[in-house]
Amino acid sequence: MKYLITGARGFVGGYLAAEIRRRDPSAKIIAVDRTGDSGLDLLDLEAVASVVAREQPEHLIHLASLSSVGASWQDPVASFTNNTNIFLNVLEAVRRGSAKTRVLSVGSSEEYGIVTAADLPLNEERRLAPVSPYAVARVAQEHLGDVYVRGFGLDIVATRSFNHVGPGQTDQFVISALAKQFAELAAGKRDHLDVGTTTVVRDFLDVRDVVNAYCELLARGTRGEVYNVCSGRGLSIDDVIGLLSTISGLSPKRVTDPARLRPVENAFVIGSNAKLRAAVGWAPSIALETSLRDVYDYWRAREALTSPGREGS
Amino acid sequence: MKYLITGARGFVGGYLAAEIRRRDPSAKIIAVDRTGDSGLDLLDLEAVASVVAREQPEHLIHLASLSSVGASWQDPVASFTNNTNIFLNVLEAVRRGSAKTRVLSVGSSEEYGIVTAADLPLNEERRLAPVSPYAVARVAQEHLGDVYVRGFGLDIVATRSFNHVGPGQTDQFVISALAKQFAELAAGKRDHLDVGTTTVVRDFLDVRDVVNAYCELLARGTRGEVYNVCSGRGLSIDDVIGLLSTISGLSPKRVTDPARLRPVENAFVIGSNAKLRAAVGWAPSIALETSLRDVYDYWRAREALTSPGREGS
Repeated sequence: MKYLITGARGFVGGYLAAEIRRRDPSAKIIAVDRTGDSGLDLLDLEAVASVVAREQPEHLIHLASLSSVGASWQDPVASFTNNTNIFLNVLEAVRRGSAKTRVLSVGSSEEYGIVTAADLPLNEERRLAPVSPYAVARVAQEHLGDVYVRGFGLDIVATRSFNHVGPGQTDQFVISALAKQFAELAAGKRDHLDVGTTTVVRDFLDVRDVVNAYCELLARGTRGEVYNVCSGRGLSIDDVIGLLSTISGLSPKRVTDPARLRPVENAFVIGSNAKLRAAVGWAPSIALETSLRDVYDYWRAREALTSPGREGS
Repeated sequence: MKYLITGARGFVGGYLAAEIRRRDPSAKIIAVDRTGDSGLDLLDLEAVASVVAREQPEHLIHLASLSSVGASWQDPVASFTNNTNIFLNVLEAVRRGSAKTRVLSVGSSEEYGIVTAADLPLNEERRLAPVSPYAVARVAQEHLGDVYVRGFGLDIVATRSFNHVGPGQTDQFVISALAKQFAELAAGKRDHLDVGTTTVVRDFLDVRDVVNAYCELLARGTRGEVYNVCSGRGLSIDDVIGLLSTISGLSPKRVTDPARLRPVENAFVIGSNAKLRAAVGWAPSIALETSLRDVYDYWRAREALTSPGREGS
């Protein structure tokens, strides 16, 4: 089986490639990234179309994305083009040259927008009401996928993926940023914790459970359907800080960093994974405490690696 | 008062400029178009930002668009970039350099998608469910406007404008295409009527009533709100053909032209204009029969002008 992964060298891509190989050691995985030997600008439709037509993958997983909500407020245009426009190019490339390819369209829980307690847990029927540039880009992506299924007959399965957690995620994302700071605190390199709004509640899923769900959806998801990929439970950032305090044995002072606040923010986001469970028999397998310990250990190891080389240390 | 109109030299732009001048003879109208002396590529963010920052218009009306649903099925990428991306560039230009400008975001009834009889007439609360590339682009545009209002404090009023009718519209649009064919039939230049699906029902509003609504919304619409701009009544394409038969005195044979059929099509679209009426006191003033006669006369006059120069005639 041949797979094409956009954003293959990103955080999720590495885990996905590993999961595909675990399931099918003879799988051929075509990695498409903006940088590296196979550097390809996904904003260049003709280039994308050429690669897709040549490779004829059975499965295409579109992970390439500027997936930071915060960054989308800094540069809405870059966020939009590097989410929606690159996805549209991928779809158009498949339509033109490889119409049998099954596409996994990875969306976001941010598509739901501001929610009230009565909406929880969020299921796939809920109205989409995006409140950030990033969320708008993801909604447009999902709508485009729907149009290509219904109007052009493409085979697309879509997700609304909730917050990921796992070793290797950049510190643009809240848990990774917090775990990194705890590692710096443990190494004596900082004396406080910079935080944004700590009362917000999110649904965190280990990236290894995420990619397991993606493989199941490629194998058995229903064409044209969208599935939440989430844990089904909510944790506040305060909860996460508490768990990281327990793991690290540290209780740092908190300082609110204005750069970590956003113009519009969801108070809480918790998803229902009932549809995904029912469709493919998937269930989460990694406890959040395990995920947090792995992420903390990842940053501790990075601290240990980098500290000897620093000037003045 | 200074106005900046994108797409000013298009079909609606001409009528809008005339309406603005009728209301305010001393209005300064900056016309931004892709072609002409002031040629500006709206896909070039820096160029757009430079113009907006220099001009500081009180009102910006964004009419530039690839507004054909049919064409969006032929080239989804062009439709998306020339609707959503150019609008995002306009918003970003206003945010960076002219944040007090009131923006009129012109959307489309196509945003509603497939509807059932129970949904009619469509009001602004109905869920958006776009089913064409063009409709997806318009929904994304509206969502982006909402994000720029809520997240960046911009002053945007949005519309969902239903089908327009009026002299000067290109024959990409159904009524203009039919009226043109009736004019050709009257001139003896064709012997049948090419049609698509004639049972579809649409809500047609004269372009002069459309631009009147736009001026009222600029003056008195509520920031962050979206308003249907429509007649409130539905006509089938069969009805339109019947009226054009009466106007022209012709009853041509109909031939279904596959090029006029679409992969996914709404069966009927009728809007409610109650919100617009209540907000600004607007009401339609031109009967559809009058609009159709004007469009037919427009094409008859064009036929009269162009026929002597044709080879072989």
